Amino acid sequence: MVTIRDVAKHAGVSVATVSRVLNSTGYVREDTREKVMQAITLLNYSPNEVARSLYKRESRLIGLLLPDITNPFFPQLARGIEDEVHSQGFRLLFGNSDEDLKKEAAYLHTFTQNHVVGMITARTISDDETYKRLGFPVVFLDRTSPQYPSVYADGREGGRIAAQEIIKRGSKQITLLKGPPNVKPAQERFQGALETLSGANVDFQVMNTTSFSFHEAKKWAKELFEKHANTDGVIASNDIVAAAILREALQLGKSIPDELQIVGFDDIPQSELLFPALSTIRQPAYEMGKEAAKLLLKYIKKEIVQNKHIELPVTFIERNTTRKVD
Amino acid sequence: MVTIRDVAKHAGVSVATVSRVLNSTGYVREDTREKVMQAITLLNYSPNEVARSLYKRESRLIGLLLPDITNPFFPQLARGIEDEVHSQGFRLLFGNSDEDLKKEAAYLHTFTQNHVVGMITARTISDDETYKRLGFPVVFLDRTSPQYPSVYADGREGGRIAAQEIIKRGSKQITLLKGPPNVKPAQERFQGALETLSGANVDFQVMNTTSFSFHEAKKWAKELFEKHANTDGVIASNDIVAAAILREALQLGKSIPDELQIVGFDDIPQSELLFPALSTIRQPAYEMGKEAAKLLLKYIKKEIVQNKHIELPVTFIERNTTRKVD
Repeated sequence: MVTIRDVAKHAGVSVATVSRVLNSTGYVREDTREKVMQAITLLNYSPNEVARSLYKRESRLIGLLLPDITNPFFPQLARGIEDEVHSQGFRLLFGNSDEDLKKEAAYLHTFTQNHVVGMITARTISDDETYKRLGFPVVFLDRTSPQYPSVYADGREGGRIAAQEIIKRGSKQITLLKGPPNVKPAQERFQGALETLSGANVDFQVMNTTSFSFHEAKKWAKELFEKHANTDGVIASNDIVAAAILREALQLGKSIPDELQIVGFDDIPQSELLFPALSTIRQPAYEMGKEAAKLLLKYIKKEIVQNKHIELPVTFIERNTTRKVD
Repeated sequence: MVTIRDVAKHAGVSVATVSRVLNSTGYVREDTREKVMQAITLLNYSPNEVARSLYKRESRLIGLLLPDITNPFFPQLARGIEDEVHSQGFRLLFGNSDEDLKKEAAYLHTFTQNHVVGMITARTISDDETYKRLGFPVVFLDRTSPQYPSVYADGREGGRIAAQEIIKRGSKQITLLKGPPNVKPAQERFQGALETLSGANVDFQVMNTTSFSFHEAKKWAKELFEKHANTDGVIASNDIVAAAILREALQLGKSIPDELQIVGFDDIPQSELLFPALSTIRQPAYEMGKEAAKLLLKYIKKEIVQNKHIELPVTFIERNTTRKVD
């Protein structure tokens, strides 16, 4: 077997220099570097898997594009992905897209330049031209896509469940918050809730919102009680908005859940630390991340994929912002 | 044109030493470093052009190692880093270390193999051998280090302020929560608070905790009121633990802040959505991330660094879990 010593001897350099070339550490003169690479090729030296893949211009890197890691839904998702890819010996190149096409394009460019072997993306527009030109597998996460492999929770069903549970517990004048129009999963949960409310024997109103930011959540909460002072049930667009509404309601002296019920969406870890603890629709964020990573790694390893669309179930987490029923 | 040799000669050191200073790799004595920086300034040496050829073969990747992105302090930090490196055309290779040395070593290995040009790390043990052998600059974040460049908030002062504010507002039987022993910033805020409490005319008790996890926070909260039912002021180890204590206190029917005051630490975005909103010590997480990225990029671009240790101020954010004073 050819060793690093043989390469060094053939190239007329030290073993340390060959090592520096292979690891791309320290300074090596360009002509020295070329001599070493030639010796490697001639002797058919195969240092180790990583150096080999480097040489072939492959990597063990996976691109990850999330809308914004400061939205508390995404750290869990990212953690699920990282745990899985790390356990299989891969690493993440990470960026926030801000749902901004220019920023996304910059990241796709970088991912290509750094020879990622695959990519996971949580983005809004799923089927444009951008992704077609990529030379590696892509998995959509928290988004459905007819053409790309995808992992998502059943948001529409989540919306239906939220509406059913709040109706079953006696709310008669329900406010449904519609999330940001460009966030597809927010629209799906909205549609699901709307469907159930429309078919039920209750009054309801829809209130539009345009973001999930902490700062704006307080604004929606104020607006809600100014516009709909007598609402007795709120289906929030996510848990952050639900927390802001809970806070505003308590400040207004409302008794929760007796006068007003609130149901959130996501089940971020903070929700169970609220008082009263938030009843919500759980999306299994960590598991979604893990499943997306598993699915992508199957494509990367060219294994057979039985199901390219993985839908994870949502569940009602009953805590104390909703009343008890038998 | 001034060369690196001229700089070395002027400073009375070897070329290798100048290189180590420029790249912030390996150990250089502080007085040697200053001599080199003076020579660079005096001779108006501009290493950028020389470095350019080297630079071309390098990547525009930066390694980022955080303890755990699901701790709500870190997404803000990560976001500050990403915004800055992205605006300067660099990208992040990201991992969670879990404060686990083996996982950290695996990431350091990957960072090297993927030719990162620098690295930002938030880790506990700051001065062991591991980081000495890296061939690229490293900035410590949320951690102090005598030898490496670092960006951190003044945790000890934060602890002092928390204690001063709660004493000033009349708590007489204070419980101080000591954070996980292996998390250095948690120990610093604890020491600061302890110092102030020790010198003040109040009774206090210390309660040990071993994690910042959401799940365990509820446990500490229960334990606190079992052990110290009559406490009238809590200095929490962070905002998550403070939220759990607030929740437990409200559940026990305590009036906040009249019977019990609570001060958190971090000012994570969720804290202002609690009811009552949490009074806390703010660490400027986003700004810390941005400053760390700026500092690292100066080393990467071989610019002159005036201050390799950047301490950002902490501030008391007065909300409604503490009483008002004039």
